[in-house]
Amino acid sequence: MEQNIRMMMEKAREAGVKLRPHTKTHRTPKAAKLQVEAGAQGITVAKVGEAEVMAGEGLQDIFIANEIYGESKFLRLRDLNRQVRIAVGVDNREQVEALSRVFAGENKPLDVLIEIETGEERTGVLTGEDALSLARLVTESPGLRLRGIFSHEGHTYGASSPEMCAELFRKSQEDTLTIAEFLRKNGIPVEEVSIGATPSLMHGQILPGITEIRPGTYIYMDAAQGNAIGDYSRCALTILATVISKPTAERVVVDAGVKALTAFTRAQGICHTPGYGLVKGFNDLRLKKLYDEHGIMISAEASSKLKIGDKIEIIPNHACPTCNLYDKIYVIENERVVDEWPILCRGKSQ
Amino acid sequence: MEQNIRMMMEKAREAGVKLRPHTKTHRTPKAAKLQVEAGAQGITVAKVGEAEVMAGEGLQDIFIANEIYGESKFLRLRDLNRQVRIAVGVDNREQVEALSRVFAGENKPLDVLIEIETGEERTGVLTGEDALSLARLVTESPGLRLRGIFSHEGHTYGASSPEMCAELFRKSQEDTLTIAEFLRKNGIPVEEVSIGATPSLMHGQILPGITEIRPGTYIYMDAAQGNAIGDYSRCALTILATVISKPTAERVVVDAGVKALTAFTRAQGICHTPGYGLVKGFNDLRLKKLYDEHGIMISAEASSKLKIGDKIEIIPNHACPTCNLYDKIYVIENERVVDEWPILCRGKSQ
Repeated sequence: MEQNIRMMMEKAREAGVKLRPHTKTHRTPKAAKLQVEAGAQGITVAKVGEAEVMAGEGLQDIFIANEIYGESKFLRLRDLNRQVRIAVGVDNREQVEALSRVFAGENKPLDVLIEIETGEERTGVLTGEDALSLARLVTESPGLRLRGIFSHEGHTYGASSPEMCAELFRKSQEDTLTIAEFLRKNGIPVEEVSIGATPSLMHGQILPGITEIRPGTYIYMDAAQGNAIGDYSRCALTILATVISKPTAERVVVDAGVKALTAFTRAQGICHTPGYGLVKGFNDLRLKKLYDEHGIMISAEASSKLKIGDKIEIIPNHACPTCNLYDKIYVIENERVVDEWPILCRGKSQ
Repeated sequence: MEQNIRMMMEKAREAGVKLRPHTKTHRTPKAAKLQVEAGAQGITVAKVGEAEVMAGEGLQDIFIANEIYGESKFLRLRDLNRQVRIAVGVDNREQVEALSRVFAGENKPLDVLIEIETGEERTGVLTGEDALSLARLVTESPGLRLRGIFSHEGHTYGASSPEMCAELFRKSQEDTLTIAEFLRKNGIPVEEVSIGATPSLMHGQILPGITEIRPGTYIYMDAAQGNAIGDYSRCALTILATVISKPTAERVVVDAGVKALTAFTRAQGICHTPGYGLVKGFNDLRLKKLYDEHGIMISAEASSKLKIGDKIEIIPNHACPTCNLYDKIYVIENERVVDEWPILCRGKSQ
């Protein structure tokens, strides 16, 4: 894990950009602090609840890279803005207008960043004109300050090759930079141009003009990320499970199911991960079926090597929803548990 | 929910069997107590951690319908067995021998039930001979008492029609009863013959000779169960989400993703549920894509009817892993929140 933290920090330094890791992956203030101590500018979160926990634990610079909406959430945001440096994403007028109503009377405005969609087909404005019209609305809205723009090239998870991943990354950055330039030409200052997802940052180059990157999963390098770089040795997160049944010569059942691993799979591309988790120490053995409380392997090799009561380590397909199932993480150094970190943001999705 | 509790209780009474609901669905002692107050014999759980929480909240009769293994778990089981009526599932010799070593010195033996596999291809012994040999081992093992046998016809979830579901249920019960009879003929007393899953109990008849049923999901009747009975009006559990973005004329994004709904889908048969959750109040509208924190609907109807900030209720595909994501459930009566129930067993999977 420390190595993963260092490598991404190094990548950011080489490109001369800030690193603002997405902590939705680990939801752990302890890990966030390690990232900041290693040189990260601040952190990214997805929810107001996560921001509150992180701020309460001393994190000072938080970007909520999501479109928050709701009166009670706005009031919580206002309280946060009085305590720490905070910013939030926007992609529509209703949200900007509602935020402005809440922040108009504040001494310190709320920083907002406009989200740009560059191919993931999720949130974000789609054109320069839409970005400009929203940016103008923000600059005219009392209580708000436009910090810049951000995009998330999450579609690189589905790239069919490392080259395609790098190409999608390049294209996504260019689209984002083009909109930044368009805004500037129209008199809108754009201080921050924020991008980033783990797979693209593993394969592609950060372009000049980008000011900040926001990868999350790199800290643990789950099975999907391991696939993408062709190396599982950097996978730092495992789930410990016990063999509880061996009903046939090929079927091995462990006590980890959907509630321990999530039903999440990666469907295609370089991050494609068949099954529901990779069994560490075995040659490409994966959990084939998952029930609420049971995980099933179909493998004569596993059946011959494993006996009832044996413990195995499972590298999850996707670290983020997996960590969210647990109350704490055991920190292991040289095969010994050296610390327990509470996953304080678990369930703080409101 | 109360209606669902009553209907299953009625079904059990008509068949003259005990109802022992599986509480892994809700993981909530408050709901478990409602079930017991309505007439349930006791409860079923999947994990020692769940049993501990339930016993701590006053539940007195608990069956862990799973093959527990591990020295520390055996010691926790021993403590539980001193406090309440408890039983545990077994399907292999290693487990029986290990349990006997821990319970040999106890005044009160541990009740065990042998699991029979009847088609789900998960855990359980496959033949009468295997059941008999394990039953003999149990009866010879100090500290253990054989209470009976159990099976779980979970493969009825994948039945292609209600008739096939009823037929799989009948066959599963017959196989279980045949093994009970075989054990008895060989001098093994079989007090309990325990079966049950929600879809089969919705469509099929309980056969004479069965003594206990263990459905779980019926309490909430999630989208998969609603499909199976062709009626969503009994779905009692919803997730509240907010519309946060409408980037195109068809795309509506809400703030509920994998961490709010799980990535779980039902792949086939009467419980088949496309997408990642059914939107209540809309005509068969479902979440089409799910990211960690975002849920996406593609629907011109949804886009025209919903505005930024609107709240929607999502009926989850599968109640069990969904409930496990939350710390509490809001109890609603006549459209008003009347109580908050802590989901005390959430995360108690160890």
